[in-house]
Amino acid sequence: MLRIFRRRFSSFCDYTIRTHTCDELTAKNIDEKVSIMGWLAFKRMDRFLVVRDSYGTIQAKLPQKLSSLVKDLPYESVIRIDGKVVDRGDKNRNLNMKTGEIEIEVEELEILNRSSKDIPFLPDEKSTKSHEKTRLKYRYIDLRSAKMQRSLRIRSEFVHNLRKFLVDQKKFVDVETPTLFRRTPGGAAEFVVPAPQPNLGQAYSLPQSPQQFKQLLMVGGIDRYFQIARCYRDEGSKGDRQPEFTQVDIEMSFTTQNGIMQLIEQMIVSSWPSSLSHLKPKLPFPRVKYSEVMENYGSDKPDFRIPWKIEKDEQNIFDILKTKNSTENWNARFIVCKNASEKVSNSLKKEWKRLIEMNENGRNFAICQKNHTLKSINLSEIPNFDVENDTLIVSWGESEGVNWTLGYLRNYVAELNGLRQKSEVQAHWVIDFPLFSRENGQMVSTHHPFTAPISEHQELLNDETRLEDITGQHYDLVINGVEMGGGSIRIHNSDIQKHVLQLLNEPMEEMNHLLEALSFGAPPHGGFALGLDRFVALLTSEGDPTTPVRDVIAFPKTKNGRDLMSDSPTTLDAKQIERYGIQLKS
Amino acid sequence: MLRIFRRRFSSFCDYTIRTHTCDELTAKNIDEKVSIMGWLAFKRMDRFLVVRDSYGTIQAKLPQKLSSLVKDLPYESVIRIDGKVVDRGDKNRNLNMKTGEIEIEVEELEILNRSSKDIPFLPDEKSTKSHEKTRLKYRYIDLRSAKMQRSLRIRSEFVHNLRKFLVDQKKFVDVETPTLFRRTPGGAAEFVVPAPQPNLGQAYSLPQSPQQFKQLLMVGGIDRYFQIARCYRDEGSKGDRQPEFTQVDIEMSFTTQNGIMQLIEQMIVSSWPSSLSHLKPKLPFPRVKYSEVMENYGSDKPDFRIPWKIEKDEQNIFDILKTKNSTENWNARFIVCKNASEKVSNSLKKEWKRLIEMNENGRNFAICQKNHTLKSINLSEIPNFDVENDTLIVSWGESEGVNWTLGYLRNYVAELNGLRQKSEVQAHWVIDFPLFSRENGQMVSTHHPFTAPISEHQELLNDETRLEDITGQHYDLVINGVEMGGGSIRIHNSDIQKHVLQLLNEPMEEMNHLLEALSFGAPPHGGFALGLDRFVALLTSEGDPTTPVRDVIAFPKTKNGRDLMSDSPTTLDAKQIERYGIQLKS
Repeated sequence: MLRIFRRRFSSFCDYTIRTHTCDELTAKNIDEKVSIMGWLAFKRMDRFLVVRDSYGTIQAKLPQKLSSLVKDLPYESVIRIDGKVVDRGDKNRNLNMKTGEIEIEVEELEILNRSSKDIPFLPDEKSTKSHEKTRLKYRYIDLRSAKMQRSLRIRSEFVHNLRKFLVDQKKFVDVETPTLFRRTPGGAAEFVVPAPQPNLGQAYSLPQSPQQFKQLLMVGGIDRYFQIARCYRDEGSKGDRQPEFTQVDIEMSFTTQNGIMQLIEQMIVSSWPSSLSHLKPKLPFPRVKYSEVMENYGSDKPDFRIPWKIEKDEQNIFDILKTKNSTENWNARFIVCKNASEKVSNSLKKEWKRLIEMNENGRNFAICQKNHTLKSINLSEIPNFDVENDTLIVSWGESEGVNWTLGYLRNYVAELNGLRQKSEVQAHWVIDFPLFSRENGQMVSTHHPFTAPISEHQELLNDETRLEDITGQHYDLVINGVEMGGGSIRIHNSDIQKHVLQLLNEPMEEMNHLLEALSFGAPPHGGFALGLDRFVALLTSEGDPTTPVRDVIAFPKTKNGRDLMSDSPTTLDAKQIERYGIQLKS
Repeated sequence: MLRIFRRRFSSFCDYTIRTHTCDELTAKNIDEKVSIMGWLAFKRMDRFLVVRDSYGTIQAKLPQKLSSLVKDLPYESVIRIDGKVVDRGDKNRNLNMKTGEIEIEVEELEILNRSSKDIPFLPDEKSTKSHEKTRLKYRYIDLRSAKMQRSLRIRSEFVHNLRKFLVDQKKFVDVETPTLFRRTPGGAAEFVVPAPQPNLGQAYSLPQSPQQFKQLLMVGGIDRYFQIARCYRDEGSKGDRQPEFTQVDIEMSFTTQNGIMQLIEQMIVSSWPSSLSHLKPKLPFPRVKYSEVMENYGSDKPDFRIPWKIEKDEQNIFDILKTKNSTENWNARFIVCKNASEKVSNSLKKEWKRLIEMNENGRNFAICQKNHTLKSINLSEIPNFDVENDTLIVSWGESEGVNWTLGYLRNYVAELNGLRQKSEVQAHWVIDFPLFSRENGQMVSTHHPFTAPISEHQELLNDETRLEDITGQHYDLVINGVEMGGGSIRIHNSDIQKHVLQLLNEPMEEMNHLLEALSFGAPPHGGFALGLDRFVALLTSEGDPTTPVRDVIAFPKTKNGRDLMSDSPTTLDAKQIERYGIQLKS
């Protein structure tokens, strides 16, 4: 190897035996001797090579005597080329390429690792949906693509900026908390980890979040805590979720709801990746009440980029849809989707109906467009509805389900009309959630049992008839229709926490350690958790909430929880069965 | 609350409702109105309070009318005091206290959370060994102690510095890798995680390190990777180890053994905590060969702060210890422990004998001090041995065991004489390890099967008789007698990797994905992993290698793998048993 030119040109080359990365040579370097390493991305006439590394591409020109070396060399082989930077000449310049003014006149070529010619695909090959499984199985090839390189690097940059904001500017302490923990109440969705001797017959649980530990850290005087925490959630193949995921976990003592919300929005804006600054939202993020978003958008996480709102049927135009079984809770509401002229096909309507009917809140609905109106209803009476250019969604039936149904349809129609793919980021806080909700007659926490009520409502905890009137100190961060994170001021008083757990019928013995901790000098505290995977997916897609999180995870699992690359999970072997005293039924 | 003075004085108070932390008020602040929050650490005559937070303490003086509020208030209750900063007056100044010139004249006092008077201990109470379990059970109280606050904050600082070095200066990319993975060959020591539907009957494994993933990231073109990675190791209650631990995981493409060692030593020195700069080792770290340290110190991780070396018995003084069964491999060696005059009691000798005999390498030994010499041997013949002031360790018997035995005794005698508690940090690289070793007749990897041989020895892989002569490209970082981390240049050629796995009788089907990955364009690469818990324990103890890692972990487990705070692990409940189709035998 030509070690004479081991001068370093950028810190990307520190500690390596290359002199430059493939993106950094320009006309300024003409006549320099360089050593480049990378993947063979393209070749022409066995004389012209394009070499690619993680940063870019460069062209190399082989002398005749070396061309036999590359004659049968498969693409994606790893090579080293040493040589001199030369001008390509006026005719051959490629101004679309950063290094397009020059090429390397190769003096030495070494094949560092020959690739198999049976490579299943090339990194930047246009992929079709049918290749998704292949790309996951050979994820390491897909990672070489410009798209995956960009995603992982933006993720790394965002997380690093975030740490610098929290530690350098705001004096937070990064504390690691255990992942081998104890099951939490309602913990059916927590993976278990059988313990070996001397705890044979028992198991740890992998926690869904460091919630208890972050509160215990506040009790322990780490008054400004954060952690980029690995969390685990066993929800089978529900939606676009991974069995393990990452959250930015934050907790602070002696703070308020307002304090945490300010911290989080400043953190997000300060850490915004430099290449995406055109999408950075303005501060402060608007705050809207839960009751308001439910009333106007039929969702607690509306996409505020969609300009349409739910309207009441003030003129009783839809009363004709009432049946004799309708109660006084019957109502009809509608949304005028201005300029939503994309036609909703019958098959799409059927699909939406199916999705909406899966939920107990699903109600009857109709979608009215040019040539598709609702029988016996005079649509021209609808204020501000232009049958030529707009779409009208109407839903009717009992109580809140009508708004819920409209909330979903609003998203569907917006997506069909391209509004959700718009390159724009809108962040809002949703606040003033009810502390409790009723599910199948049982009182449950709207979020989790550690959320404090607003101080004005604390007394209501003692009035069983008023529980549903209590507002909690919870706040959700909603971006482009996705709940990116949530947090709350916590209960710091042991007696109140115990009372709330009792109201909720939670098994007290599982939570004794927390109740005890609150009794030994717990400061008032609150916090937040940001879903990192989802947030970065939104960033890298420039705001598209439908981008799957696997696009920003190096080695994701499928919806079925499988790692196609290593073919995991697998059956247990004899040693494992013996060590953990474990039997699995399939 | 007196919200009039919500001015912020330091970023430690951003987003909180305090104006100052308990350490930052001095004579400069006299006459200012402030609001302080913290724990009641001390009170006198119900008029003078000491309030503590994570940063320091401050004295407050109550007016008569408020003293009833604190009369029965237990220590460690959380309070807010609003008031004016006043001079303590010449007589009452406490110059040992950062805030000792002033006190707060309290105008308003609020009890934010009353502590139970049954608190099991106070944070900075001098603790005895018998309290260890109590302190782990109520870890959140122990975390308030100055010692734990310092440890966790130094840990956070070191990790943050390290990230800034790697990302900002050296352009590394922080990539998260999965922890729900597939068992690796020899994976009996990996915890298993049973999978739910649709993978019922199968299990993931929690990896001991991201070794495979980091190599796959290199194949994927992330050519400068790092991660502060949570790892899992099921070794029961072996030594000072935790079932989950953290390593600084690093991998780089197109590098050399020298490149990685330079990176790591510069990273460590650049990230050194500011309060410990007097301990920072000089660059470069000395490099010593495995054969050399085994010869001189009888250990592959010698504590270089101990000045004593193993000497050969050139004068055959100890030949008298030979028996008729001795083979030609018999030898005797000794260490003159200069100025080690601390007496080795007979009970200690017995204990050392017991520990040494537990290992198959243990050999006969004797410890000679004033009045304790070795029968029929003239110790005055030992060069440089002063029987008045030194200790002589001698060991004899078959082959390498003699050096191994002396290596252990060297540490024991040094510890007894206070040499291992010395506040000093000495870092060395140990290099040129053999690639393979023989264990019970079977060839095993000295480190792991992914380590590359040095290029001059690559051909020897094809000569079964020469395998033990192969030097691997492995390097260990040894600090104060502890292996802090290790790394290697990896095998990047699929055929060579396959050949090595075959030599080692590893089950090939478990490693197919890696072999395949190496065949599709893997760049030459290498890396390193630093044991973070152990390293931070050494830092916070100012170099004492015997400090337990649980001192730098917020919520550690006991040697038996139990979390005493939450009483985990626990038995499975019915829901868990059903969901995972799992049965555990105890």
